[in-house]
Amino acid sequence: MIILFGIFIRYNPEADAHWPEFKKQQNITSDIENDFYFRYPSFQDVHVMIFVGFGFLMTFLKRYSFGAVGFNFLIAAFGIQWALLMQGWFHHLDFNDGKIKIGIENLINADFCVAGCLIAYGAVLGKVSAVQLMVMTLFGVTLFAVEEYIILNLIHARDAGGSMVIHVFGAYYGLAISRVLYRPNLDQSKRLQGSVYHSDVFAMIGTLFLWMFWPSFNSAIAGHGDGQHRAAINTYLCLASCVVTAVMISSVVEKKGRLDMVHIQNSTLAGGVAAGTAAEFMLTPYGCLIVGFCCGIISTLGYVYLTPFLESKLKIQDTCGIHNLHAMPGLIGGIVGAITAAAASKEVYSEEGFKLTFGFEGEFAHRTASIQGGHQAAGIAVALAFGLVGGTIVGIILKLPIWGDPADENCFNDEVYWEVPEDEESLPPPVEYNNHMMGKHTGP
Amino acid sequence: MIILFGIFIRYNPEADAHWPEFKKQQNITSDIENDFYFRYPSFQDVHVMIFVGFGFLMTFLKRYSFGAVGFNFLIAAFGIQWALLMQGWFHHLDFNDGKIKIGIENLINADFCVAGCLIAYGAVLGKVSAVQLMVMTLFGVTLFAVEEYIILNLIHARDAGGSMVIHVFGAYYGLAISRVLYRPNLDQSKRLQGSVYHSDVFAMIGTLFLWMFWPSFNSAIAGHGDGQHRAAINTYLCLASCVVTAVMISSVVEKKGRLDMVHIQNSTLAGGVAAGTAAEFMLTPYGCLIVGFCCGIISTLGYVYLTPFLESKLKIQDTCGIHNLHAMPGLIGGIVGAITAAAASKEVYSEEGFKLTFGFEGEFAHRTASIQGGHQAAGIAVALAFGLVGGTIVGIILKLPIWGDPADENCFNDEVYWEVPEDEESLPPPVEYNNHMMGKHTGP
Amino acid sequence: MIILFGIFIRYNPEADAHWPEFKKQQNITSDIENDFYFRYPSFQDVHVMIFVGFGFLMTFLKRYSFGAVGFNFLIAAFGIQWALLMQGWFHHLDFNDGKIKIGIENLINADFCVAGCLIAYGAVLGKVSAVQLMVMTLFGVTLFAVEEYIILNLIHARDAGGSMVIHVFGAYYGLAISRVLYRPNLDQSKRLQGSVYHSDVFAMIGTLFLWMFWPSFNSAIAGHGDGQHRAAINTYLCLASCVVTAVMISSVVEKKGRLDMVHIQNSTLAGGVAAGTAAEFMLTPYGCLIVGFCCGIISTLGYVYLTPFLESKLKIQDTCGIHNLHAMPGLIGGIVGAITAAAASKEVYSEEGFKLTFGFEGEFAHRTASIQGGHQAAGIAVALAFGLVGGTIVGIILKLPIWGDPADENCFNDEVYWEVPEDEESLPPPVEYNNHMMGKHTGP
Repeated sequence: MIILFGIFIRYNPEADAHWPEFKKQQNITSDIENDFYFRYPSFQDVHVMIFVGFGFLMTFLKRYSFGAVGFNFLIAAFGIQWALLMQGWFHHLDFNDGKIKIGIENLINADFCVAGCLIAYGAVLGKVSAVQLMVMTLFGVTLFAVEEYIILNLIHARDAGGSMVIHVFGAYYGLAISRVLYRPNLDQSKRLQGSVYHSDVFAMIGTLFLWMFWPSFNSAIAGHGDGQHRAAINTYLCLASCVVTAVMISSVVEKKGRLDMVHIQNSTLAGGVAAGTAAEFMLTPYGCLIVGFCCGIISTLGYVYLTPFLESKLKIQDTCGIHNLHAMPGLIGGIVGAITAAAASKEVYSEEGFKLTFGFEGEFAHRTASIQGGHQAAGIAVALAFGLVGGTIVGIILKLPIWGDPADENCFNDEVYWEVPEDEESLPPPVEYNNHMMGKHTGP
Repeated sequence: MIILFGIFIRYNPEADAHWPEFKKQQNITSDIENDFYFRYPSFQDVHVMIFVGFGFLMTFLKRYSFGAVGFNFLIAAFGIQWALLMQGWFHHLDFNDGKIKIGIENLINADFCVAGCLIAYGAVLGKVSAVQLMVMTLFGVTLFAVEEYIILNLIHARDAGGSMVIHVFGAYYGLAISRVLYRPNLDQSKRLQGSVYHSDVFAMIGTLFLWMFWPSFNSAIAGHGDGQHRAAINTYLCLASCVVTAVMISSVVEKKGRLDMVHIQNSTLAGGVAAGTAAEFMLTPYGCLIVGFCCGIISTLGYVYLTPFLESKLKIQDTCGIHNLHAMPGLIGGIVGAITAAAASKEVYSEEGFKLTFGFEGEFAHRTASIQGGHQAAGIAVALAFGLVGGTIVGIILKLPIWGDPADENCFNDEVYWEVPEDEESLPPPVEYNNHMMGKHTGP
Repeated sequence: MIILFGIFIRYNPEADAHWPEFKKQQNITSDIENDFYFRYPSFQDVHVMIFVGFGFLMTFLKRYSFGAVGFNFLIAAFGIQWALLMQGWFHHLDFNDGKIKIGIENLINADFCVAGCLIAYGAVLGKVSAVQLMVMTLFGVTLFAVEEYIILNLIHARDAGGSMVIHVFGAYYGLAISRVLYRPNLDQSKRLQGSVYHSDVFAMIGTLFLWMFWPSFNSAIAGHGDGQHRAAINTYLCLASCVVTAVMISSVVEKKGRLDMVHIQNSTLAGGVAAGTAAEFMLTPYGCLIVGFCCGIISTLGYVYLTPFLESKLKIQDTCGIHNLHAMPGLIGGIVGAITAAAASKEVYSEEGFKLTFGFEGEFAHRTASIQGGHQAAGIAVALAFGLVGGTIVGIILKLPIWGDPADENCFNDEVYWEVPEDEESLPPPVEYNNHMMGKHTGP
């Protein structure tokens, strides 16, 4: 990795010490127009989503919090390095000197790329080893970079928030792997598959940071100015609407009208996924509410009816229910994007806004809205295909008995891979400790 | 909601795809001058305060963490949609086409509006149903929008951080509701009214995110440039001073000099509340320390002496002690704002700074500092009146026996409204699990 | 404190209401060029690191979470006020009127200064009283301001992320204090020195927020434009590389290949420490990976081999292992900075970038790269000397028997200084509660 970085990776002009010269050449009047100031706050929010958001969202299992947050940390940190290289080769290679010039936008894209792999981790959470996760991430990042190149550069579909590129690909990649690694005797570790009270509260940390920063996720690499502004507003509205719907549906489907934490932790986020592709488009505020409304319903019902069906009939064991949180909302997002693009008009976008929003310049200068709509739809198909085929192949690789995966009865158990501290709760408290608690203190 | 959004809500010019045209018309030279880049980082911080800050601050109860963080999530997400409409009608309606044009500042204002309702939730935490909370939020947002319109537009008081508009209103709204919903037999659920060790640590997550991001809260909608800069500094200093004082007082009043987590979790924040109205003013750094100092004392003593008094004599059951955290510091903040405004001079502010800070333009161009001081004081009275009267009326509505409120012995208990996982702690650990812990592993 | 602020502290021109005049004088065309917009997002990230990052990182002990997060809160809030004064006197005193003019950069510097003291707190965590911590912070901030003045202003070493100024000083300051306060009978509180399952998860909150926001820490006061941009990229890469290495080493050294949470919580951060001094330099992306790689190895091995050695042979009891997380990586960072500076050339940096990066203007206009390298190395020695000598003296002061420090058997126990709630776990659940859990509910 170090050698590859040494050969290929350099700073881009906005991060290089030659910036004062570059600024003069480009007639940039102020340091504040460095891309850093456009994107850094969003980058940090995305970074929080990747490490705290995804990490803590998966801590809901009673005895797999170390694995959730720790392995998430490991594979994300590994993945972003590999992603800088892979995405660099496909998107940012400077053909003059054969170098990849990185700046803040590359860091965001690397985080996005890793997000795809972390989504996939959700499907196999608790059932694979750290080594398997590293392999999964290595291939996942590679596939992601290729798929992203095809969708964004060749097909020239737009996907600011990655509904297709990140969520559809990541989810089906994970589900395909989980299908190949199907464990018929997984109920041997059934006692560890649930949550406890405080692990559900930890998971809410993940949920909330994902939810709050999703507007940054969808706007992070959108166009400067109105593009980022509109993407943030659209996502905010989708998410708000989705929460209300998800809670209502959860209350309706559960016995006695009680709410289920699984739905609150996951289905409330579906709106952000679905707002991804069309985030930058003129989706209109009420359009956002409609998208959020639909996602809240579909995602919650998915947890109630579809996940058990997937497990029993299709033999897909989906620990975190990523099919409901990422796959279906991602598909909705892709479709919404295709429709919105096909319906775009120069009256709504203005002559120049139309070009900027859809990137109709250079070889794409003559594309029309309806053609763009078709290409958006093609993007969904590519993401789906890469996820399913790539996941199946990687799943077969991971099935090789050389990766140290846990036995069925040890799934969802941190003790296999972690030094776990002795727990007071499951041991009688030592006498001297009790004495102390009731006894005398020194101190002020 | 979707229909209302469809009829009324549109993007404002800075979020609309017509931005490139608008930019030319307005002679804006760079995308970075889009309001998005002035306010988005502050918006995200405020967003964290609303969802993680308020949500986790209320998780201190041993068995109401789901309700604290989950219902907070629900009513905030519902409230911001309704707030966009209500605040839009009162503040942002474009009379040319009858539409509300939203941008990043509206999202911040919607979050602010919801903050008022979440403060009120603090008073009734654990004693109301989700439906009651929705009703409370619906009316609360509506009252807030009217009160805000009167204070900021008609009276033309300044309130960048909302000491009056948000905190005084929200706190008295909640306290009045709590008074009407008084439960004489609440001690039937006394065993659930305390905290446990880790619930106090969860609550500190809320405290710290509120504390850290309060400078963003108070500066989010302050004037561009020096206004936001000064508001952030003022709030930072108030808060720092308040923490030290609160800890000292907590140590003095408790037996054996020990500290009480309730004070650390709440009273440390009072400085931020009190810095709200005067945040943008030339409060001076030492003025901030004085304000923080006073709030730390008053708020901590309030928890020790006033909360028991309110409950026993005035029959106000205030679960989170919002009277000490929001009501009293909010009043202090309003008074400090009135005094600072009345004492303002053109020497201190400069000719142009004076106009900008107090918005003395248009019909208010001839207002003087002392007149402004009087109008600030009037603002406090309006906020107080709206809170008390509005809260009483809404309280009476909520007393109707149709909202599914919990019985006295089921207060502060998540199991009424949530699917709560079986807890290992209260069950003997299953044998096979113990065996496993001591026994053999597979794996690497 | 209030009096001192009253005498000395004023707003700087960018935060003062005279800003509109100042803007005209300086030919600044837009409010967005106020330093606030360059630095505020980074400031808030640093703020999170100080209060949530350091606070929660230390919650790993099973019964010292209140002390970790609460005392951290107290001394940080106290320290930033004192730091504004001390750093102001040394760095920001306006000799025309004898006032300190504060702005956003001062708030960041105050947070940095406090970081040094919080690092020192890590060494004595659980073994000192709140009063001792206040004394330690009072002297620590004072020493820090002097040392910072010598290193940055007199020696004119560069240290954007504070590897030397913050980490080396803070770590050796804490270790020297811990040495003086050596407790031979500390194993009397051995039962409380470990973690429990959920306290390790809490600590991960601290780890992740430190890790994620470290690019902001190292770039917060770097030069506008390319300086901040490059510092963020360098730190990001160092940290990513460090995580992967730390996990690998942790797995190799532990029996059965299992991972140790202590390493994941701490050693993963060493890369950020080491990236501090050279953050702004042209360290090159592969150079960052190498630095992170080395730090991950050294820090993890330090936890395994060096910490026990320090305790048994040198009588330094280092609760959080700050020697491995801050001292050694800080020294590495200083050395990397010295080498990178000595090797700098005008080809790599460009004529103007060279001057800007190293601040070669005014009296330092004729300094060469190799001379700068020497001065960087001198900076390390100064930081080390201040830490060791200052820490020893302050340790002797803290050994006086007037500060209410806890007895050996009460170390690491919150009950000495906090009102700790009764814990369900160590008590049999009350009957009526159990009945309730199994029994009937009211509600919707």
